[in-house]
Amino acid sequence: MTRRAILAEALGSFLLFATVIGSGVMGERLAGGNVAIALLGNTIATGAILFVLITMFGPVSGAHFNPAVTLVMRLRGEISSRVATAFVAAQLGGGILGVWVAHLMFDLPILELSTKVRAGPGQLTGEAIATFGLILTILGTVRMRPASVPASVALYISAAYWFTSSTSFANPAITIARSLSDSFAGIAPACVPGFVAAQLVGAIAAFLLGSALFAGRAHA
Amino acid sequence: MTRRAILAEALGSFLLFATVIGSGVMGERLAGGNVAIALLGNTIATGAILFVLITMFGPVSGAHFNPAVTLVMRLRGEISSRVATAFVAAQLGGGILGVWVAHLMFDLPILELSTKVRAGPGQLTGEAIATFGLILTILGTVRMRPASVPASVALYISAAYWFTSSTSFANPAITIARSLSDSFAGIAPACVPGFVAAQLVGAIAAFLLGSALFAGRAHA
Amino acid sequence: MTRRAILAEALGSFLLFATVIGSGVMGERLAGGNVAIALLGNTIATGAILFVLITMFGPVSGAHFNPAVTLVMRLRGEISSRVATAFVAAQLGGGILGVWVAHLMFDLPILELSTKVRAGPGQLTGEAIATFGLILTILGTVRMRPASVPASVALYISAAYWFTSSTSFANPAITIARSLSDSFAGIAPACVPGFVAAQLVGAIAAFLLGSALFAGRAHA
Amino acid sequence: MTRRAILAEALGSFLLFATVIGSGVMGERLAGGNVAIALLGNTIATGAILFVLITMFGPVSGAHFNPAVTLVMRLRGEISSRVATAFVAAQLGGGILGVWVAHLMFDLPILELSTKVRAGPGQLTGEAIATFGLILTILGTVRMRPASVPASVALYISAAYWFTSSTSFANPAITIARSLSDSFAGIAPACVPGFVAAQLVGAIAAFLLGSALFAGRAHA
Repeated sequence: MTRRAILAEALGSFLLFATVIGSGVMGERLAGGNVAIALLGNTIATGAILFVLITMFGPVSGAHFNPAVTLVMRLRGEISSRVATAFVAAQLGGGILGVWVAHLMFDLPILELSTKVRAGPGQLTGEAIATFGLILTILGTVRMRPASVPASVALYISAAYWFTSSTSFANPAITIARSLSDSFAGIAPACVPGFVAAQLVGAIAAFLLGSALFAGRAHA
Repeated sequence: MTRRAILAEALGSFLLFATVIGSGVMGERLAGGNVAIALLGNTIATGAILFVLITMFGPVSGAHFNPAVTLVMRLRGEISSRVATAFVAAQLGGGILGVWVAHLMFDLPILELSTKVRAGPGQLTGEAIATFGLILTILGTVRMRPASVPASVALYISAAYWFTSSTSFANPAITIARSLSDSFAGIAPACVPGFVAAQLVGAIAAFLLGSALFAGRAHA
Repeated sequence: MTRRAILAEALGSFLLFATVIGSGVMGERLAGGNVAIALLGNTIATGAILFVLITMFGPVSGAHFNPAVTLVMRLRGEISSRVATAFVAAQLGGGILGVWVAHLMFDLPILELSTKVRAGPGQLTGEAIATFGLILTILGTVRMRPASVPASVALYISAAYWFTSSTSFANPAITIARSLSDSFAGIAPACVPGFVAAQLVGAIAAFLLGSALFAGRAHA
Repeated sequence: MTRRAILAEALGSFLLFATVIGSGVMGERLAGGNVAIALLGNTIATGAILFVLITMFGPVSGAHFNPAVTLVMRLRGEISSRVATAFVAAQLGGGILGVWVAHLMFDLPILELSTKVRAGPGQLTGEAIATFGLILTILGTVRMRPASVPASVALYISAAYWFTSSTSFANPAITIARSLSDSFAGIAPACVPGFVAAQLVGAIAAFLLGSALFAGRAHA
């Protein structure tokens, strides 16, 4: 089971990260300078693939594709530290490969570093709120309404692309991977630590609040 | 149960109102002056977060996030006056905090007052129709098709953003909160009483008609 | 039961037709001349409200809102001629009221006649295909996958707004009602008979083909 | 059963291919040169009709509409070679008729050949990835989450229109049919063999990987 689960995390992260980068490039190329239209395409593609990947890989690995989710599941005691470590490695490895394949598809240099600065208290607050909401969404649906997890996570991220000033990375692995793409969805490497720290703050806050809010309702 | 329900109303209103304001700012900033594209982003974000919040908080509090909904549930005898009052306070408190956090995320002044005039018989009719349809949607699904409530409410509001001339506030708490934001989704404070009055007219009309139309079908 | 069903047909047609007209006006006003963006808003609003109305009124009346659907249900023997006649009257009455309320909301003259010419063999073929697909969608889901009817009809019309040259009226009552609005969604009165005839051809073809294709699978 | 299944494949391919071509023409005509907006309309229409057609025809034929899917189902032993051959013929016949009817609806010459060159290693990688993901989506949902197949396939293709550089044909029959339309969705005949070869590579890879990843989970 575990080997399959790790493969599912790698493959899901591969397809998810390729979608985030690829649809960003497509949107930017076609939108004629209207960034909102590029973000609409980016949003539809990301939300749609999240529904598909969580539906498909949920029964295999839980469909984390995100070290912040894996951390919270470890804190809840649902997976071991050994599995959590392997999951994060698979997310990073599969996801970075996804970025590179997106570059290959769009005839971009495979190896790049982003030059897009994303920083400041506003955007860091955005990342904390974005990740807070994502973890709360998962904790609020995974036990009581498991059939709604794929739609809920997909739609949460679709909303968060628009309502947070950072366009909601909400995922340390995708933040690192996006630093390797000098395109629409990129982030300069120097900005990665701040984003990841804000994401972890949001994730821990949601873990604490969600455990209280949804406690006693497990397996209902 | 009640303390958790009140927390759910506050937290849900926080995320909902932050989304309405935040996605309005994002849309306006990126759309290059094309208001329809800004409204598309605002619509997708609002509809998406409504599905998530109602899925997640429905089992906890009923997921009102709206004094007009709380009023109708009180009129139907489903909650006490004490709970209804606490819900409305939580909606206003959590929701206004959401507006302020949206301002923080987008580097706007926290404290603002909207200068956007929204008035006239057309827009007031719009608010009455918008709230009428929202309450009817809830009354028409909550008993007979409870699993469809999140999608129905989310899609109703998505439609109403476009088919009503007021872009469908349909919620007295969000109307007050939006008066505190001088952005895309704002409304000048002087226009708030008219909007709220129209919303209550629409809500009561839907309560009366819906009780007749869907009566005898409860718990089916 | 029947009186409630007729009220549901009138009320559903009122909200549906108000949405078609209202979102068309909103789209046209905001889109700055880009008709595709106006059509996107019109599509999202129409698809979204169809899901809501069919979910809510399906258990009450079958949620026709369309004389072509009522005709096919009469041909299948599912309703009497008396009920079918009352349904069509309710669809026209409620729907035209919806058009007028949309005009009221958007500060347009209540009484108008459209001047938008929609004609020619291409568009008539479009209407026949559009209605053929709509009736086939209903016949293909109503027995075997009843829970999927609201999403299927909503998404079918969303697609048909884009893939048919006529933007898919697919409904004789809405065709008549749209002739009373000189806005984005209007149709000149002289073009109505051609559209309705094409719609009936498509509906009958789908009835014949669908009865063969989905026969013997009833109540599965 | 088989005759009905073949009819379902022909009729579904007819409506699917008419939608792909028709919505591409509509988007291009209305979008005023903004290709991203045209692609948004094309995406919404294609995703929406896929949900409808798979919901409706899934119980009749499996709703392939795609020789790559039929090939994989043959390799899995779920259909005979005779049925597979008839399905592919129906997909091509029905689908090409759909292209021609789309031309008729939009007052275009019925018989055309595309002049749009789609080639190069980037786009061929795109087609291989697109088809790989499509087959994986089907294999990952068809046994374990059959009720989610229509939404998953529809949303996968919606994402792939944006994240692959080729806009995701992912279907040999639609590739051939699109070579017969000199419109937004077309592909020059000389580019067809490369696209089809890349699609088959992706499909076989997904078949091998998916059989391992989702094995032993059949009928769960």
